[in-house]
Amino acid sequence: MPAILYTIGMGPGDPELLTLKAARLIASAPVVAFFAKRGRTGHARTIAGNLVPATAEQLRFEYPYTTEIELADPRYAEGMSEFYSNCARQIAARLDAGHNVALLCEGDPFLYGSAMYLFDRLQNHRLETIPGVAGMSGCWSRAGLPFTHGDDVLSVLPATLDEDSLVTGLGQCHAAVIMKLGRNLPKVRRALHRAGLTDRAVYVERGTMENERIFRMRDLDTDVAPYFALILIPGRQASR
Amino acid sequence: MPAILYTIGMGPGDPELLTLKAARLIASAPVVAFFAKRGRTGHARTIAGNLVPATAEQLRFEYPYTTEIELADPRYAEGMSEFYSNCARQIAARLDAGHNVALLCEGDPFLYGSAMYLFDRLQNHRLETIPGVAGMSGCWSRAGLPFTHGDDVLSVLPATLDEDSLVTGLGQCHAAVIMKLGRNLPKVRRALHRAGLTDRAVYVERGTMENERIFRMRDLDTDVAPYFALILIPGRQASR
Repeated sequence: MPAILYTIGMGPGDPELLTLKAARLIASAPVVAFFAKRGRTGHARTIAGNLVPATAEQLRFEYPYTTEIELADPRYAEGMSEFYSNCARQIAARLDAGHNVALLCEGDPFLYGSAMYLFDRLQNHRLETIPGVAGMSGCWSRAGLPFTHGDDVLSVLPATLDEDSLVTGLGQCHAAVIMKLGRNLPKVRRALHRAGLTDRAVYVERGTMENERIFRMRDLDTDVAPYFALILIPGRQASR
Repeated sequence: MPAILYTIGMGPGDPELLTLKAARLIASAPVVAFFAKRGRTGHARTIAGNLVPATAEQLRFEYPYTTEIELADPRYAEGMSEFYSNCARQIAARLDAGHNVALLCEGDPFLYGSAMYLFDRLQNHRLETIPGVAGMSGCWSRAGLPFTHGDDVLSVLPATLDEDSLVTGLGQCHAAVIMKLGRNLPKVRRALHRAGLTDRAVYVERGTMENERIFRMRDLDTDVAPYFALILIPGRQASR
């Protein structure tokens, strides 16, 4: 049988929120691959910890950019495309040699995950995706916010949208999650104010991790959020 | 220390998609509680299988209605409210006696889960919620559908909405999940047609379970879906 690329959801951060299946596949993987920012261990790799066998080959894919190039610059898209193609070639070489590969991915892989760019490039190989606990599920659980009841519509909005689109999007749902905050936090704050939602919004940083922080949005006094931060606006209260 | 109610996400169906934390807490629970339809084992209880200790007290909460009363009938809401209050009283009695309780909940508890109605009623007790892999994550992983990239907006729409609201909602996002299909499937089919999305939609029934079925919406020839079925419309393709 040809080898399999397992794209594995690592959950929101707490290593105990890995699934049994993820733990089993990582512990038996001959090759473990993961993304990392320059100079960092890589968040998905950190979650895996000692589950990775000492004998496993480790493929560390270091992102070429952090903030050196603007997202809108065409060189950014070109550079990232080349990067993902190179990662896919490295994985394909292991699969073609008969070795299964475990590609570690934060949260749930198919929900805004970088691993999708490799999945798209490796369609001529055997692929299996192991879903993970989404970052937002970890955050609303830790914040104690029952999120959607009954007929509630939930929208997940990337903070990279422009301010007007955020205001519009927030007005079209009952419950909302705003992802990818980072330097977009001041814009998101303005959008929440315009939508009249500041008092219902909760900010969660590094949910389920050791240095987790949870604030009501109206009490948050910073203008820059880390990557692992999001804003939660829970849906309508239960009527029963 | 007072006893804790652990509200535990059981994931989409495959018992191996339980988290390590869920498995640990269930295996050490003196009391295990779960919902079930009349005459059924209860789906969350089935997923837990042999993890439940033989010595644990099991609280089986049987829903008072299946389809005997219309949702719109005020007696339905009253009956359900009474049911949930009774469940909460049974759990409170165990907590007050010093016994931790593990309340099993399909998928992720705070995403349309019945357990939220108990959580709301037990706010004067110690509560911890363990997030689980959402049903939709299990389904899009099994269907091999990378779901949201970049700036994609994701909406989760209950099929219980009226047809016009579904059409509007589908037009306001890039990726969509339609939950709670059941007898609403014909209405959803019409809404997808009006939104021009039939050809992009994928139907997943019992995703990650043994009797899983996956169809393109245009090939689906039934008009009634089981409870564990949803429709997926993946977002924009990756441009990288």
